[in-house]
Amino acid sequence: MNRIEIHSKDNRTVKLAASLSEKKYRDALGAYLIEGPNLVREALQQGVNVKFIFTGAGALDQQTERSEILELAENSGSAVFVLSEDCFEKVTATSTSQGIAAVAEKRGWQAGDVFTDRANVLVLDRIQDPGNLGTLLRTAEAAGFSGALLIKGGADPYGPKAVRAGAGCIFRFPLLLCESAGEALAMLAEQRKKVWTAHMSGTPCWQAPLANDIALVIGNEGNGADPLFLKETEAVTVPMAGRTESLNAAAAAAILMYESMRQRAACAE
Amino acid sequence: MNRIEIHSKDNRTVKLAASLSEKKYRDALGAYLIEGPNLVREALQQGVNVKFIFTGAGALDQQTERSEILELAENSGSAVFVLSEDCFEKVTATSTSQGIAAVAEKRGWQAGDVFTDRANVLVLDRIQDPGNLGTLLRTAEAAGFSGALLIKGGADPYGPKAVRAGAGCIFRFPLLLCESAGEALAMLAEQRKKVWTAHMSGTPCWQAPLANDIALVIGNEGNGADPLFLKETEAVTVPMAGRTESLNAAAAAAILMYESMRQRAACAE
Repeated sequence: MNRIEIHSKDNRTVKLAASLSEKKYRDALGAYLIEGPNLVREALQQGVNVKFIFTGAGALDQQTERSEILELAENSGSAVFVLSEDCFEKVTATSTSQGIAAVAEKRGWQAGDVFTDRANVLVLDRIQDPGNLGTLLRTAEAAGFSGALLIKGGADPYGPKAVRAGAGCIFRFPLLLCESAGEALAMLAEQRKKVWTAHMSGTPCWQAPLANDIALVIGNEGNGADPLFLKETEAVTVPMAGRTESLNAAAAAAILMYESMRQRAACAE
Repeated sequence: MNRIEIHSKDNRTVKLAASLSEKKYRDALGAYLIEGPNLVREALQQGVNVKFIFTGAGALDQQTERSEILELAENSGSAVFVLSEDCFEKVTATSTSQGIAAVAEKRGWQAGDVFTDRANVLVLDRIQDPGNLGTLLRTAEAAGFSGALLIKGGADPYGPKAVRAGAGCIFRFPLLLCESAGEALAMLAEQRKKVWTAHMSGTPCWQAPLANDIALVIGNEGNGADPLFLKETEAVTVPMAGRTESLNAAAAAAILMYESMRQRAACAE
């Protein structure tokens, strides 16, 4: 049991952890921040490489929960730092940390992790809102998709809001970053995935064969998908009643990914 | 053309509009704020009672768009105020206003608006996040639901974030506020709706008959639905693959409401 107390905001570890609120430092360090007892416990249990655990002095509501997490952390070899209140506030980005946070190493996913036999993949084309991004990845995992390609230019899946909205899927759901729509399409062609792009007009989702071996492209909230996707792939649409002109990107994607799962379940019957 | 210039933040109209960022004033005045050219135009075109229009001096990016909206406003009898920059900032709550905002009167919906023959209704049990709330209502309209019951204690559908996430559905989608789960259940029984509550365990949505004449209950993001709903109604569940423990409330509801729409479309074939 080697717990280190820190009282200075100028401490190197505190400054390092605080820097992870910015994407450039997350990229440079290959690490990100996890906040709150539920997510920190989940990370430890799922074998995420947790570098440091931080607790605020006298912070966690339930002392038993705190001890349990700290024990888990020490058993897995993570260093535990007990921070003064101002240091803890400097490290954490959201109010949901409830006195516990951790610095974790990003996993280096390979194409072989994202693409598994016959499974479907999600392609996110510059999703801007981190809450939408986290929700999209979480829903993709629940719908049995095997991974996601993220086109450069959107929110960072390792940012604090995306991690929170993702509810732990960042620990295990394989992600690959692509430089461009063209790079993603080349990769999907190599993997022989049938690519569908969600769009205002296209085949109604209930008529589109989505069960297996597809890639589903979800475009940017404001501008939709890159024109290259619309040119090179088939469009699939979510029918809409009433005077609604569009759906939220995460809601539309949830409907499409679950229509895929429903078709798969129906095939298996 | 009677445009009034305002330069003082102490102006009564400016203070009234700024007060609408708080729920208690929206409730007391029966009014709410609409921000941004798209939403303001939509409100005017759809016959919403728009009391005032505000523009920031030299604000809107496109002068033609601005003139078009102001003309619409004046044709519909709305007063137009041209505000100095600091006054405009005081009135608007979000950065998405792009130089135009409006004060609109809430519509007084009746049970007869929410409940229409055989149509489905959404029941939102204390949804906390205004973005989720707006997305839920927008998706409900798109899925052909006729209206929503909102149980007291959640986010306000007339708050600025909910209005924005709703993308205009607040102008036309009928809403009724209920004091409690009990009141909602009594109303649904009277309307002979079959009530399904979204829950972790229940009938998988693909096996549940959801096409017509149902009410779908979506519970609070943290704590789920009121125990009374779980006791008195049937539970419906969204199957989940992988290690996901739950879905975002708006994503789960989108999947369930669209499964209902799919079943309706299949019946009609």
